[in-house]
This record gives sequence, C-alpha cells and structure tokens, in this order.
Amino acid sequence: MDVKIGARTWYPSASEKYYAKCLKKDRDSTSALLGFRISGLQVHHESGRWKPHRDKVRKYTVTDVRQSLRQFISKNPDETPPDCALASSVYGGSNGILAQLLELKSWFEDQTLFHFYSASLLIAYDKGAKAPRLKLIDFAHVMEGEGIIDHNFLGGLCSLIKCMSEILSDAETAAGPTDPQVLETAADLEAAAGPAEPKVVVGPTENGIH
Amino acid sequence: MDVKIGARTWYPSASEKYYAKCLKKDRDSTSALLGFRISGLQVHHESGRWKPHRDKVRKYTVTDVRQSLRQFISKNPDETPPDCALASSVYGGSNGILAQLLELKSWFEDQTLFHFYSASLLIAYDKGAKAPRLKLIDFAHVMEGEGIIDHNFLGGLCSLIKCMSEILSDAETAAGPTDPQVLETAADLEAAAGPAEPKVVVGPTENGIH
Repeated sequence: MDVKIGARTWYPSASEKYYAKCLKKDRDSTSALLGFRISGLQVHHESGRWKPHRDKVRKYTVTDVRQSLRQFISKNPDETPPDCALASSVYGGSNGILAQLLELKSWFEDQTLFHFYSASLLIAYDKGAKAPRLKLIDFAHVMEGEGIIDHNFLGGLCSLIKCMSEILSDAETAAGPTDPQVLETAADLEAAAGPAEPKVVVGPTENGIH
Repeated sequence: MDVKIGARTWYPSASEKYYAKCLKKDRDSTSALLGFRISGLQVHHESGRWKPHRDKVRKYTVTDVRQSLRQFISKNPDETPPDCALASSVYGGSNGILAQLLELKSWFEDQTLFHFYSASLLIAYDKGAKAPRLKLIDFAHVMEGEGIIDHNFLGGLCSLIKCMSEILSDAETAAGPTDPQVLETAADLEAAAGPAEPKVVVGPTENGIH
C-alpha cells in the first residue's frame, strides 16, 4: 500500500502552475480532509489478488480510505465486511506498522532538516513471519527544512496513526477478552516505549534514493 | 501574545472567495511555512510597554516570529538581543506554557470531534508568581471533525512546541550548569509526564465563548 502523506503536496517555491495542480488534487482527494491519501494498494490472498483500479483509488472518499486500510489487512479483502484477520500481526505488536509509524512520528517531531512534499509511506507485509515493513519513499520534492519541523507531514502522519489505531481497537474488541493475541493501540505502544529516541526509519527505497 | 495555529486557515466548506482570501494570507504570512503566525503581542516591562505595530506583525517573517517568541519572555524586549530572562518561569517548568502546550497536543492527537480553523492560542503571564496561562480562543470557524483528527492544528502546534523548546534549550545553555533553575525541554517534560491523559486545556476565553 502506498500512502501519500500530508494535507498539501505543493511546496513554497513551486511554480504557480504546479501549485494550482497540487492544490486541486489535494482538495479533490482525501489529502486536505484527512491529511493523507492512498495512491495504490494490492493484496495477494489465498484465492488470488485484490487490486482496486487506479481510477477508483483516485476517487476514494474518507470512508473508502478507512475501508481500504481494513481491506489491506484482511484475508477476504473483496468481501463486506472485510475480516481484518491480520490487524494484530501487520498493524499491531512491537514490530508492527503502528509501532514503526510512532517511531517515525518521534523523528518528525524533532527533525528540522527536511520537508517531504508529496512523499509516500510504503506499507508491505509477507505471508511468512517476517515483520511488516514501512518505508518512506518518493523523494522528488524534498526541501530543506531551514530549522522548521515538517508540520505538514507530521499532521498527516498523526492522522494515519489515529485511523490505524482505531482499526486495531475495533479488532481487539471483536476478538474479545479471551483472545490470546494482545493488540496494542497507539497510546499503549507509546506508553510501553517511553520517550522515543530520534531514530529514523527511512531506508533504501524502491527508487534507490535514500 | 496571540498565535494563530495551523498552516491553513480555510475550511473545506468555505466559499471560493473566503478560501482564496485565507490561502493568500496563509502564504503571505508565516502560516504556510511555519504552521502558525503571530497575530499580536505586547509586554509590560519595568520601563514601559513594548507592543509592535499591527502592520509590522502582519509582515513578520519566520525569523521575526522566532525573535518575537524570545522578546515576549524578555525583560528588555526592545533591545538586541533580548535577554530571555523569563524563559524558565513562563515557557519552562511543570506548569509552564510548554507543559500546557504538550498537554494540548495529547488532546489533539486523539480528539476527532472538532477542527479549529483560524483559531488562536492566547499566551499570557503576570509579574507575580501565578502560573502562565494558555487559552484556546477565536472559535468563529470551528467545524465538526467527523472522526478525523485536526491534523492542521496539530501540525502547527507541534511546530510552536519545537520553537519554544529550542528557546528553552538555548536559555538553559546560556544559564550554564550552575544555574539553580532547572529548565525543561519538550522531550524532558514528555518523559516526566508519561503517557498523557486526554485532558483539555480549553477554557473560558476573552470572547466569552468556550
């Protein structure tokens, strides 16, 4: 899943033409409302692959985005409702996506070197036991931060964290108290981790830029 | 001091005219760059009152805003450099403005009921021993959050926290290790507080709206 982070994708020094183009896309998509938008996603499950068409993803509403975040970690993504069967193993846990997002959030609360306009988070997981992966990608419009935090990226990141945390809470409620798997919300994970080190999750990307 | 929080002051349902007006102001001021702008400030000090003219404040650059955040807690606001003599007693400490901003931040990371467009933080302190005060004011454009966090306000708030934290760190460095006052940065305060309760700092405002 590719999630473009930030309510605005235009950067201060952009040309008026590029600025107007970005502004329109941000308002037409969920970016302005939700602080992020889904650019694309696919799931390989037991009976095949689920991949909504690009044109459909472009028109996603806030409700569609919330639903897609659930479908992405479901064994039956094309059914209603999706089962969210992989919520705890992909989004939850100390090595899960939510924990990695919180680590990235700590970094963004402190770092003032870079502003990431129109950058994405790539979220991926395997069938096997390996931890799910979070990568910051698409660095075509990275600007110097000039001593200011990237409040645009950070705001969108917090919004994604909130959405994902809610999915985990719902899955925990649905699983009931007897379920052996311990699901963790953002607050639980932050409390357990204590004050975060400003570590960076940024890694080599598929584009080879990092 | 009145600080308007958020990189954007327009709300999704605004008319095109209002939207265009806000967008221009956000780009012309420090809002888009810094995630907040100063709307006005004054300091009563021993030898009189320091109050930059409204037209001057409107044209503040990022550098001016940083400087004003220092002047606001200085005993010599109209001298260069300002002494930041009140940094620890106004911004720092467990009841200081930074601690209150961090509490407000915890609330904004969780609450999805309201979006505060064009709202301000009023920061005030007295000569006496009373704790400095932080109030959320100007609720003319509060919209329903519809389950989404106010990532626009939150991002700007984090940017203000970072700026204030840097002033405290600088004051701490300047004071040296023998200074009896313990100044605290955002990270120290968050670590000491542990996972924050979603308490709200919102209180009665000067406009009587709350």
